[in-house]
Amino acid sequence: MYKNEGNLATESNFNTEIDFANEQALEMICSANPILIDVQRAIDVVPGMTKNTILTSGPPTKWEDYTGGQRSAIIGGVIHEGLADSPTSAAAAIRSGEVLVLPCQDFDCVGSLAGIHTASMPVLVVEDEQSGSRAYCSLFEGKAPSRLNYGVYNNEVRENLIFLEQTIGPLLGEAVRLSGGIELRPIIRRALNMGDELHSRNTAATLLFTRELFPYLLAVDRSGENKKIIDEFLDYILSGDYFFLRASMAAAKASMARVKNIAKSTIVSTMVFSCKEFAIQVAGLGDKWFRGPLPHMESCHLFEGFSKSDIEFMGGESIILETYGLGGFSQAAAFPLQAYQGGTPESMIEKNLRMYDISASEHTYYKIPFLEFRGTPIGIDIRKVVESEITPTLDIGVAGKGGGQIGAGSFSAPIEPFQKALQAFQDNFL
Amino acid sequence: MYKNEGNLATESNFNTEIDFANEQALEMICSANPILIDVQRAIDVVPGMTKNTILTSGPPTKWEDYTGGQRSAIIGGVIHEGLADSPTSAAAAIRSGEVLVLPCQDFDCVGSLAGIHTASMPVLVVEDEQSGSRAYCSLFEGKAPSRLNYGVYNNEVRENLIFLEQTIGPLLGEAVRLSGGIELRPIIRRALNMGDELHSRNTAATLLFTRELFPYLLAVDRSGENKKIIDEFLDYILSGDYFFLRASMAAAKASMARVKNIAKSTIVSTMVFSCKEFAIQVAGLGDKWFRGPLPHMESCHLFEGFSKSDIEFMGGESIILETYGLGGFSQAAAFPLQAYQGGTPESMIEKNLRMYDISASEHTYYKIPFLEFRGTPIGIDIRKVVESEITPTLDIGVAGKGGGQIGAGSFSAPIEPFQKALQAFQDNFL
Repeated sequence: MYKNEGNLATESNFNTEIDFANEQALEMICSANPILIDVQRAIDVVPGMTKNTILTSGPPTKWEDYTGGQRSAIIGGVIHEGLADSPTSAAAAIRSGEVLVLPCQDFDCVGSLAGIHTASMPVLVVEDEQSGSRAYCSLFEGKAPSRLNYGVYNNEVRENLIFLEQTIGPLLGEAVRLSGGIELRPIIRRALNMGDELHSRNTAATLLFTRELFPYLLAVDRSGENKKIIDEFLDYILSGDYFFLRASMAAAKASMARVKNIAKSTIVSTMVFSCKEFAIQVAGLGDKWFRGPLPHMESCHLFEGFSKSDIEFMGGESIILETYGLGGFSQAAAFPLQAYQGGTPESMIEKNLRMYDISASEHTYYKIPFLEFRGTPIGIDIRKVVESEITPTLDIGVAGKGGGQIGAGSFSAPIEPFQKALQAFQDNFL
Repeated sequence: MYKNEGNLATESNFNTEIDFANEQALEMICSANPILIDVQRAIDVVPGMTKNTILTSGPPTKWEDYTGGQRSAIIGGVIHEGLADSPTSAAAAIRSGEVLVLPCQDFDCVGSLAGIHTASMPVLVVEDEQSGSRAYCSLFEGKAPSRLNYGVYNNEVRENLIFLEQTIGPLLGEAVRLSGGIELRPIIRRALNMGDELHSRNTAATLLFTRELFPYLLAVDRSGENKKIIDEFLDYILSGDYFFLRASMAAAKASMARVKNIAKSTIVSTMVFSCKEFAIQVAGLGDKWFRGPLPHMESCHLFEGFSKSDIEFMGGESIILETYGLGGFSQAAAFPLQAYQGGTPESMIEKNLRMYDISASEHTYYKIPFLEFRGTPIGIDIRKVVESEITPTLDIGVAGKGGGQIGAGSFSAPIEPFQKALQAFQDNFL
């Protein structure tokens, strides 16, 4: 195992420079004001998106390394977009370069689980008011356990995706445009007071968001042509508690985008994983990826009929929320998670407190009531991770080998990417 | 001070009978299913209500004993109902018996603060599906600090009450009737997972209730005649976080009504206070009131510019929620209350745990996430209160001497009513 040999620690001037860079980064993260400004088809708003591009979760990965559910999801995306009519021809089109499989991250998108984004899929468009930086995230697929992002593509999944494209996306876009934009920060702040950590629990945030939206839905309804669509939309958004997850992911992504390329900052700007590996980017190291093995399970709760041997990794970038001080970094705000992802109140508090040990600071706007309104731990510092050997706690949905969601759990990130990043940091700057 | 001399404790057979009666009572409380079935003017639905009746909080009290804000609120009610045109003539009408001032409790109503219910005021009609017993509660007056129930009656208060009568009440009634009735228990259960204790915090419950109501508001809107009213209604219900308090009070009242007159049960069925005194009723002792001094402040948080010397008691029956295992009995579900009524997470947990010591059991449906989903303490047993000298913790809004709300706090009930009730219990049954 890598050990910090002390050459960085002894460079106290250099650490002062880092601390200064990190302070700047934290100020940018905490002052970011992500606003949901629109919902549009990916092809119409995501810069660089093309008809034959399929985006997926994780760092850049060769086609042959996508396996299991993530591979199935990518193939489903190709077929869904009409670029092939069978899994075999889809794989052939990818191998031939006719269809491109690329990381969400390179397109300012952020993927949930397999994270498939195709040209015709509607995406939430979130813009940081301070910097103008944008992030995009596809829509929650609804409550059905079979979803493209959990590695399944069949008629039911296909019809649901068409429903999102033709009904939900356009209506949501119209309502959001009518609203003039919905500020996501106040919703996140309030939801932290209402049992959400905004990753595995978005119950309150979804309600708060719906409340913001309702007057505009009413306005759309009053045009007289949309009655049926509004009813379907209400059914969609009110039936589950996870709609807001995609908005919180895009909010986190748009906010963290601000700290890409802050020289000498050791703050983690991105965390992602694919079916194969976990990877991070660091503010001071730009777009370079530092990779390691998949996260390790701390506790989890599986739906009835499933066991741990059924668990499969299919990718996931919702851990941008942990990068942004939410999810596993705010577990003490969300005790009801016990029922969904296991753990006890004591273990949640302990994990949450541990995250302060690896974070550069505390959020000035997001607070945790149980910790007497202490700010959430914010800004994972690779120095602190390597030194303490404490790695980020991740609250994630768990996919099953046959596809579909089979539970949720609390996982810990591997330490290797943080060690590699710190080594690169020393190599670059010392 | 009264002391339990042991005559009850030595009567173990008798205690067995009590335990059996209490078990029956608890089964009735936990299985009650309160449903909001309508919103109507009090005169049209409250049995026995007349045009010249003013209901107010607390046990039966002589007119001359109503002082300060509660007296002002009663006089405001008389004028508002058109039964007098000045405070002097209102007081004269009361003294002459032309206007009757009676306890809410005698009419199955439950009053917030001063608790004024007059004939023309709209009330929530909540019915326990199991027993058919009904309870009624007036509507939240909105966010303005000046409200009739906080002892103020002026043009602004009057116009707001007319708005509730003419706009909010009829629309809410129509939507609720269209819904076929809204079950309150699932909302309360979920809100306990979302930072509410349903007394001083109803943020999540109000949202959850609004969500239930949305489709029916939309249906009302579509009749084409209600657009302006719907917009006003949304503004009313979405601008504050306390709408649901009145529904939770009526739910508690309709549920606790089931245990009135269960022979030999030592469970407290009602707690109330007036400007002058605190009082309880006990299941095995029917409608008899046991009185004592006003509650004692444990911790409180006053709005800027106010001090403790400004605090005035104006009555309050929202403590039916504590009787029903919510509010002060569920503080560990509502850590954000620190900001509203003071206290620390530690003191909330400690108080909550103490309430188990004086409760007969744990609710089978309402659970507290932080306590690993332990049921809320339910069924205050007067024997346990007297023996432990622990009295119920009450989460209440705090009124100020000039009228209006000046803060909120956590108070403890006096022990005397429990001692008197236990003495009466022994006198009656031993």
